[in-house]
Amino acid sequence: MPPGTRQIGIFLFDHFEELDAVGPYEVFGAWSTRAPEDGWSVRTMSMGGVEVRGANGLVIRPDEDAQHVGHLDVLVYPGGKGTRALLANRDHLEWVRSMRASVPLLASVCTGSLVLAAAGLLTGRPATTHWASLDYLASLDPTIDVRRDARFVDDGDTVTSAGVSAGIDMALHLVGRLASPERAREVRHLIEYDPAPPF
Amino acid sequence: MPPGTRQIGIFLFDHFEELDAVGPYEVFGAWSTRAPEDGWSVRTMSMGGVEVRGANGLVIRPDEDAQHVGHLDVLVYPGGKGTRALLANRDHLEWVRSMRASVPLLASVCTGSLVLAAAGLLTGRPATTHWASLDYLASLDPTIDVRRDARFVDDGDTVTSAGVSAGIDMALHLVGRLASPERAREVRHLIEYDPAPPF
Repeated sequence: MPPGTRQIGIFLFDHFEELDAVGPYEVFGAWSTRAPEDGWSVRTMSMGGVEVRGANGLVIRPDEDAQHVGHLDVLVYPGGKGTRALLANRDHLEWVRSMRASVPLLASVCTGSLVLAAAGLLTGRPATTHWASLDYLASLDPTIDVRRDARFVDDGDTVTSAGVSAGIDMALHLVGRLASPERAREVRHLIEYDPAPPF
Repeated sequence: MPPGTRQIGIFLFDHFEELDAVGPYEVFGAWSTRAPEDGWSVRTMSMGGVEVRGANGLVIRPDEDAQHVGHLDVLVYPGGKGTRALLANRDHLEWVRSMRASVPLLASVCTGSLVLAAAGLLTGRPATTHWASLDYLASLDPTIDVRRDARFVDDGDTVTSAGVSAGIDMALHLVGRLASPERAREVRHLIEYDPAPPF
């Protein structure tokens, strides 16, 4: 990787929701593979670098230990039922706050925003989450301006998205913001993202 | 897993495209987790059961050895640049034909259909693939009725889909076909699949 490459880290944990993480991973991976001249790369990480098992059972071996990951430009925090334990874990919330202090852009997918809220990072800010957790998000911090109908909410250094598949849309938005609308359209074309839900 | 559970296997290999596999995995996983009474489950497999690394670098440890997987009701074959080696591998094509003989439904995503074509399984049939490989698909077997504009093509015991993200639409279609349209709508709602590409 050339020096100066900007780093996107996707944090994984037991019972993360698979598409929450792999949707953005695909978008950022297709971007970095197709346009290395843009100077971005994506990798996965977990606490201790240990293997994690997703909410539906998928086993991923992360690239790195999240506690020794070095500089990140973007941290993606996916959702999944595993967030319930993490948002009650003080040490973990302390780590999330330490990432906030060093990472310019935090981006959550689905119920990942519950952990950001529990860490106190969404106070007084607009944010969203999976439709089934909107009330829970509001209960974690009543000062949050919960955007119930948003696909994603870009609040500058913090971007939150709605449930699961919304992470794909949020990631494309970030490619447009971090590179250009043209690059985002190119990535969209590469992953043939012309969705046509049959139901 | 209760006896009689029907099995969906997702075949993984080095340089598979991550979302090709994980899109359907999420759809089928959300289905089986939410509606165990339907009696379906999903798992991943690779040759020898070994860890595989995706085209963008994601490392997955599959659940099983594809050569000793037992009965499958559905086999999902994703695409990715790794298909180029597989479609030229005689032993692998023999394995694919053996799966055809025992698995009622083969479903490919993206360039996975190139391998089915090379194995002779698409002769005289309608099929599709990633937009950049449509001509290649036709060249592998000129008798294929290549559907250039289809999101997916359901030809009964064989379903092929367009590139990468199209696997999500194909998988939802299969939930509708194997369970019911109501169940497919429920799964779609669970994964909040109301796509809104920002570019």
